[in-house]
Amino acid sequence: MSEFKVKSDIEIAQESELLPIQKIADRVGLSSEDVEYYGKYKAKISYEKIRELQKNKDGKVILVTSINPTPAGEGKSTVTVGLGDALGRLGKKTMIALREPSLGPTMGIKGGATGGGYAQVLPMEDINLHFTGDLHAITTANNALAALLDNHMHQGNELNIDPRRIVWKRAVDLNDRALREIVIGLGGPMQGVPRQDGFDITVASEIMAVLCLSSDLEDLKHRIARMVIAYTYDRKPVTVKNLGVEGAIALLLKDALKPNLVQTIEHTPAIVHGGPFANIAHGCNSVMATKTAAKLADYVVTESGFGADLGAEKFLHIKSRNAGLQPEAVVIVATIRALKMHGGLAKNELTFENIMALEKGLENLMKHIETVSHFGLPYVVAINRFSADTESEITVLQKWCERYSIPVALTEVWEKGGKGGLELAEKVLQEIDRNERSFTYLYDIQAPIEEKIRTIVQKVYGGKDVEFSVKALKQLKDFEQFGWGNLPICMAKTQYSLSDDPKKPGRPVDFIIHVRELKPKLGAGFIVALTGEMMTMPGLPKNPAAYGMDVDEKGRAIGLF
Amino acid sequence: MSEFKVKSDIEIAQESELLPIQKIADRVGLSSEDVEYYGKYKAKISYEKIRELQKNKDGKVILVTSINPTPAGEGKSTVTVGLGDALGRLGKKTMIALREPSLGPTMGIKGGATGGGYAQVLPMEDINLHFTGDLHAITTANNALAALLDNHMHQGNELNIDPRRIVWKRAVDLNDRALREIVIGLGGPMQGVPRQDGFDITVASEIMAVLCLSSDLEDLKHRIARMVIAYTYDRKPVTVKNLGVEGAIALLLKDALKPNLVQTIEHTPAIVHGGPFANIAHGCNSVMATKTAAKLADYVVTESGFGADLGAEKFLHIKSRNAGLQPEAVVIVATIRALKMHGGLAKNELTFENIMALEKGLENLMKHIETVSHFGLPYVVAINRFSADTESEITVLQKWCERYSIPVALTEVWEKGGKGGLELAEKVLQEIDRNERSFTYLYDIQAPIEEKIRTIVQKVYGGKDVEFSVKALKQLKDFEQFGWGNLPICMAKTQYSLSDDPKKPGRPVDFIIHVRELKPKLGAGFIVALTGEMMTMPGLPKNPAAYGMDVDEKGRAIGLF
Repeated sequence: MSEFKVKSDIEIAQESELLPIQKIADRVGLSSEDVEYYGKYKAKISYEKIRELQKNKDGKVILVTSINPTPAGEGKSTVTVGLGDALGRLGKKTMIALREPSLGPTMGIKGGATGGGYAQVLPMEDINLHFTGDLHAITTANNALAALLDNHMHQGNELNIDPRRIVWKRAVDLNDRALREIVIGLGGPMQGVPRQDGFDITVASEIMAVLCLSSDLEDLKHRIARMVIAYTYDRKPVTVKNLGVEGAIALLLKDALKPNLVQTIEHTPAIVHGGPFANIAHGCNSVMATKTAAKLADYVVTESGFGADLGAEKFLHIKSRNAGLQPEAVVIVATIRALKMHGGLAKNELTFENIMALEKGLENLMKHIETVSHFGLPYVVAINRFSADTESEITVLQKWCERYSIPVALTEVWEKGGKGGLELAEKVLQEIDRNERSFTYLYDIQAPIEEKIRTIVQKVYGGKDVEFSVKALKQLKDFEQFGWGNLPICMAKTQYSLSDDPKKPGRPVDFIIHVRELKPKLGAGFIVALTGEMMTMPGLPKNPAAYGMDVDEKGRAIGLF
Repeated sequence: MSEFKVKSDIEIAQESELLPIQKIADRVGLSSEDVEYYGKYKAKISYEKIRELQKNKDGKVILVTSINPTPAGEGKSTVTVGLGDALGRLGKKTMIALREPSLGPTMGIKGGATGGGYAQVLPMEDINLHFTGDLHAITTANNALAALLDNHMHQGNELNIDPRRIVWKRAVDLNDRALREIVIGLGGPMQGVPRQDGFDITVASEIMAVLCLSSDLEDLKHRIARMVIAYTYDRKPVTVKNLGVEGAIALLLKDALKPNLVQTIEHTPAIVHGGPFANIAHGCNSVMATKTAAKLADYVVTESGFGADLGAEKFLHIKSRNAGLQPEAVVIVATIRALKMHGGLAKNELTFENIMALEKGLENLMKHIETVSHFGLPYVVAINRFSADTESEITVLQKWCERYSIPVALTEVWEKGGKGGLELAEKVLQEIDRNERSFTYLYDIQAPIEEKIRTIVQKVYGGKDVEFSVKALKQLKDFEQFGWGNLPICMAKTQYSLSDDPKKPGRPVDFIIHVRELKPKLGAGFIVALTGEMMTMPGLPKNPAAYGMDVDEKGRAIGLF
């Protein structure tokens, strides 16, 4: 038995030898003056250095996305790390730029978000727990704003805020369903103004999106000032600037905005910074992280959340537009297992060969390839190999790619680290060198909100049309009237399907997307369109991962994965 | 005008030159292997080093306490820092051990807690904001436990927990009165079990007390396991161990338990770690901090919260008993201003000489002197001088001390740093050298809870007796029956008076203390006795300090004080 035992991610991580973080910093030209250490293996990069780097030219950004996620797992972060390591092995000066994990899913069901096997960023224990405190700073800033707002109500409500129309919610970086809908301010006139409220998970908060889209501290402060937190009794929006606390909230974020430097198992420098959800928020790591990496390295491998319909679309329409950074190539990750689920199989049916399900599931992959092509970007499909994949299945997939002239590479980065990603790295470099990129946005930013949403539904999801609820129709009018019409859209949609019905895998057709509500996120600089039942606060499962967690007397983590 | 302008604490702090934290570590024999840097001027001390230090002999602990605090301000932290700096100037190997500030009061009304003037610990901006993330880790551990508990209820409630008898509350490190009384779990069966709940400020949470009283990670985990979080429908206590998540909660605290090393303006090494409230909790910095400082230095100057009736009593009965560390001498801080308030003056009457009020106010100081004497400890009264104090007032005070043979020293540490504390340092050393200490606890730990409380009321507060509410009387029985009788008591009482009525300054007599409820804190290892209306969640004032806070484009804080 023991000879076949596969090591767990945390075992591999704990057995790996880390270099002192200054050695990693040295590799990209960051002196000890340019970084601030957080323990021995983490550092933040200073604002002074980031300003100084602006004169450098930008490296090439490679965006990693995937098919719609399934319970089978795709391993997008793992491929991102492995591809970065592989580019390093090919002699390219490379950095990786990832999101910070949220504690909620880590303690719930998902496990951490630092890659897997021999393609991980380290120290995985720290990154998956408190890391450098960024998420805690965001949670605190979010809740300080809420406390100041409720205090304003309590102390006379000079701004004439309607307690029924406060849209600013509190936040906690945990999965805690009991906090979704709450009533606060109970207990009489000394305990504040009673009202309905709720907590979102921190990674779904606007401050997380703001931090990820800010170019510097000044920009951050301006974005915070613009955030809409409530409406008055006469339905006028109330912003943080009206409350007058943007300085205090920005102060709480002064260190959280600095990108975090860490390393992979193979000592490739990685920046792990910012981590907004990709359904309710825009799902990309911070602009500061990606831009800093691009100034320091020739190649930057970064990922966006969930499938190309969510994370990649938002990377391109929101983050790229915001930061002026467009990818040179896109990697679309798929697994045979996940494709078979898109072809209709259940999770317990995946260990057996099933060519028919695989062929049907390829429709999902094809839609995402088409989407990336619509954006005018070169791409490579990465098949993240699992041991149960059969030769026949792999052959079917390769033939299919050949038939449609789709560049494809098998990767084995989980098992082999960067070595398992060399084919992928070479194909990505080929695509970049062919230089046939002709990037274009799919919608005009000046188009009406309704039209922008329809464009995403039709061109990215392959849907027929969009329907708005009565509430959303009214909001469309209000928002244009408030002058919020010329912002990009952040679709809040299930990640499991191209449609808004999580039970429709593969490539559904002729479907309608239902927008039930819009949310103005003026600090982030986008309008959220809520479709279906979107969760901004996950719950814990019956047996949360936390039950298996522990720490030994030396401070080593047990049960993280 | 400008020539008389007094510099603010933050101006003095920002103009001070900090040494790299390794230089500070070097002074007490901590190599770069022994510490983990958090930025350039903060570090955590490793568990390995702390274990290794156990073989060293203990330095002498000097405890700084004060008269009952008044709105006039006493400057206890300032005197603590200044005394440490002064001992350093006298050639003594000295460390300072302070509490970490809470963000709630910092953003509310109180300002930070890093001393003042030229007697500050640095970097004051960081320490007053997120510091090394300890408080955030505690908040997160507290709320993860709450989420796991509510999830247990939602997933079938195998432990038969009565939702009306859940005593574990959520926490946030902010002043947020609207969260004092809330209802959670609303929205139907998918959103958890509806119940009444509330948030305490993090520094009032049991996890803060646990962290501060733990001797190492194993002890921390055992204490967490023992915490009572709820009662079953048949009134049996439910602990964290019953829920089975002590490992996960301890994991979240694995770095927070490591003491934080910083420096004073004069580069004296200081450990700033842990910060429980001194009314609802035990009000001392961590055992790990004080013990580590005692292993590293010959003299450790530490403080406890509020007056000697609260912080010092708890330091001696709870922390000393727990950690086996008793102070060699006590410093009792007073100001002429505050004594005059105890003598009946209002805050706006303090700028005028008033000998009668001063003489009357000295009664408060006398009671605290008596208390320290009851414990068998030598002491020095430190008069923290303010510019408005008149020569006649100072003479009156000195004569009074002379009459009763009370060792006293004037300090001017705010204005002069360690130089202004030399007289105090010399007197403290004299008292220690006289070696007339005969330390004794005021109550027997095996005595019934009721008797222990009565002893504190009579010997420490100078009250006549204690009265228990009907609820508390029932709890006295229940607790003894549950086997919780042999724990020390943590009195939750107003800091403004020796009695439980904040409107009685000076030295009230013949008063009764009313205990309305007991709270078992088995993790911390004490029973809280609530008297009067104790606030476990402060509110923000009409004009919170946050309104004046800001950050410049380089990340420098504005408006902290």
